[in-house]
Amino acid sequence: MEPYGIALVGCGTVGSGVAKLLLEHPDRLAARAGRPLELRHIVVHDPAKPRDSCIPRNLLTTDLRSAINDPAVQTVVEVMGGIEQAKRVVLDTLAAGKHVVTANKALLATHGAELFDAGRRHDRAIAFEGAVAGGIPIIGALCQGLAANQILSLQGILNGTCNYILTGMTENGQRYADVLREAQQKGYAESDPTLDVDGTDAAHKLAILVQIAFGVAVPFDAIRRRGIAELDLLDVRFAKELGYTIKLLAEAWFEPSTRSQESGVRAEESGGKLALHVSPVMLRQNSPLALVRDAYNALFVLGDAVGSTLYYGRGAGQMPTASAVVADLIDMAVGRAQQTFRSLKLWSGNHRSIVVRDPNTMRTRFYLRMMVEDRPGAMADITRVLAEHHISISSVIQHEAIEHADEDTEIVPLIIMTHTAATGSFLAACAGIDRLACVRPPSVYFPVGD
Amino acid sequence: MEPYGIALVGCGTVGSGVAKLLLEHPDRLAARAGRPLELRHIVVHDPAKPRDSCIPRNLLTTDLRSAINDPAVQTVVEVMGGIEQAKRVVLDTLAAGKHVVTANKALLATHGAELFDAGRRHDRAIAFEGAVAGGIPIIGALCQGLAANQILSLQGILNGTCNYILTGMTENGQRYADVLREAQQKGYAESDPTLDVDGTDAAHKLAILVQIAFGVAVPFDAIRRRGIAELDLLDVRFAKELGYTIKLLAEAWFEPSTRSQESGVRAEESGGKLALHVSPVMLRQNSPLALVRDAYNALFVLGDAVGSTLYYGRGAGQMPTASAVVADLIDMAVGRAQQTFRSLKLWSGNHRSIVVRDPNTMRTRFYLRMMVEDRPGAMADITRVLAEHHISISSVIQHEAIEHADEDTEIVPLIIMTHTAATGSFLAACAGIDRLACVRPPSVYFPVGD
Repeated sequence: MEPYGIALVGCGTVGSGVAKLLLEHPDRLAARAGRPLELRHIVVHDPAKPRDSCIPRNLLTTDLRSAINDPAVQTVVEVMGGIEQAKRVVLDTLAAGKHVVTANKALLATHGAELFDAGRRHDRAIAFEGAVAGGIPIIGALCQGLAANQILSLQGILNGTCNYILTGMTENGQRYADVLREAQQKGYAESDPTLDVDGTDAAHKLAILVQIAFGVAVPFDAIRRRGIAELDLLDVRFAKELGYTIKLLAEAWFEPSTRSQESGVRAEESGGKLALHVSPVMLRQNSPLALVRDAYNALFVLGDAVGSTLYYGRGAGQMPTASAVVADLIDMAVGRAQQTFRSLKLWSGNHRSIVVRDPNTMRTRFYLRMMVEDRPGAMADITRVLAEHHISISSVIQHEAIEHADEDTEIVPLIIMTHTAATGSFLAACAGIDRLACVRPPSVYFPVGD
Repeated sequence: MEPYGIALVGCGTVGSGVAKLLLEHPDRLAARAGRPLELRHIVVHDPAKPRDSCIPRNLLTTDLRSAINDPAVQTVVEVMGGIEQAKRVVLDTLAAGKHVVTANKALLATHGAELFDAGRRHDRAIAFEGAVAGGIPIIGALCQGLAANQILSLQGILNGTCNYILTGMTENGQRYADVLREAQQKGYAESDPTLDVDGTDAAHKLAILVQIAFGVAVPFDAIRRRGIAELDLLDVRFAKELGYTIKLLAEAWFEPSTRSQESGVRAEESGGKLALHVSPVMLRQNSPLALVRDAYNALFVLGDAVGSTLYYGRGAGQMPTASAVVADLIDMAVGRAQQTFRSLKLWSGNHRSIVVRDPNTMRTRFYLRMMVEDRPGAMADITRVLAEHHISISSVIQHEAIEHADEDTEIVPLIIMTHTAATGSFLAACAGIDRLACVRPPSVYFPVGD
């Protein structure tokens, strides 16, 4: 059968992996795609740069336009990274009448609507299994396998760097800075890890998952996000003492509107509310997500028919991401990706009347750790502030302080676990506590998962 | 858009769930399928039987032929169960030019080749996401999401009944018979649980997964299978003491042929060996599959590009299985299922030169528990038999026996963990040990996972 022509734009870590799979396993891929997958061009900035030995020099080119316009090329793989230049490549590809496979989560989270509109206008498809959780086929699961369900919640460990750091802190008692350095040496963290550790990367992925699961295009800035930068080992230890593990989670919950429940109208037809955030969360030590270690990713999906399901694997890295990109290429060659693109109408603006909740209205239990002067009245002051904000206390830990000979007042950690409270009230209470004379701000808090 | 017509054959637990999803969520499903999914007939033996209130009486019919031949019906859902009658329904449906969705693992494991040949002959598709692991979309993952990979191994907890029983025995120290009764009361076990607890059900599912992952049609009887019927609590306790958990696993390992490795020819093009079995296996307590509790299923898939991935969820039950069946119906309405059917060429006999290994040649570590007379020479006799079969010992547990006043010889459990050994040699050694005068046969053994 006629080969299926492919151009690769970008040849960094993931791009080399894609080239490697395409070039080293032609028979395997041809069998699954029903025709040979032919890599025709690899577009790079600098063809002279040293590269993996599997990359044939004769495929390298700087001529993006010719690669896209090659009549034998049917799909262009965008793995160059970045946002604005990648967007240009995708729009030019669609305009040239070619399909797009991308693993660029930042691009989709930022410009999904514009790109998918362009795809529909040109009747070309965009596939992006590699954009979330590397090789774990969770885009496919949400688009196809779970398509009969109303998704009720998503909870994901979607950033391998953060999970690697948290695992080191939890299991080996390493400090944040030490385990970050180790992660950089092992290649699990970038030299500038900001977008990973501040929650931006996980929020990009959550924005994409929410679009598929709920049909809602959440403006990226509307996702409240907190990362794990400078997480204190003290809190990791207290979490452990309480039977919990701290994980950076990307979470979304769908709540059918009360009106529709009352009137018996089906929730998915009448809308509802969506809550979402990226945050360090305290999970019970034996819960499935708490057990996900090192640089692995996992996504917990609750559907109204299927119940709880979980997907687990390597969320990044050369070959896992290449596995997802080449799966998309097979789907394109078979013709499935085009049908999925047409039927799902992602980022089409025709979503149901789902409103995104103010994060301050989200209700959860909280872990609160304060550094407090060990003197009479401190506990009374703190608990009074909590009471004023209607936050009720579930449990308290204050370990006995070591009596020192000098006269300085001892500063001791005080941990309070709250009952369920609205986030806004809780944050107001925290601010009040941090203004108390007996407290050394800032106090540290995390939501507590079920 | 024109509705997509569906006939349901069978209206038991799963059938009612499918009807429920189709009838209660028409707008949701129409949005995802790109057209309304219209349930036109429900074929049953006895229309007068009391049924779930969601089943409209006017859809019930005993007239299979008219339902299949209704020109507005495009896909027939076979959820009647059993093998021979279901086979007839599927063949008749395909001959009538209609597609088939089935959740019948026994049917596919037994007659897959004949049914898929008929599908190809009539240019109609068969989809079967619900046949393995209920609502967990692992068929989709293997067929699409992981399509770029050579799968290297599959390890699955595929029978919820067994896992429920094993969880009760492990966590609560319940006896096999007691927890089986409890499982029956809760609806997790059939009144005749034979096919579940003897490993047949898991072997059916393994046969299907092996066909997708490796393209090999393993004759069902070639799968060595052991179940958990009458598992002794003693072994569950010893496993725990050793840091292991007993799980019923369906496993398959692919090994590229040595010749091809040496000559540098790619394994997937030159064949290899496949080993597979269903067996209780001792897993380290903290391994991902060991942590799967109750009636949940999970499948661990190792791919050469993606690495380790895991899929987890409810493996049976009304709505989880209906979730998978309706996902297949959406795939049919969109047109994807037909493309998958055509491109995968399952059960087509054109698989690569992969040979199924004699299970006796499989090498693993073993747990061996014997009931032994507590007298001089017993240990010497046993270890001599093991040495004769070249089985080396990794560790031994024999607890101190309580000295009794009477003169009867004490019978005590003796546990030996072996180093890696060929299964055939190990079984021969077991037979030899069971013939010793100091041993009360039969001795009990399990492979030990990594």
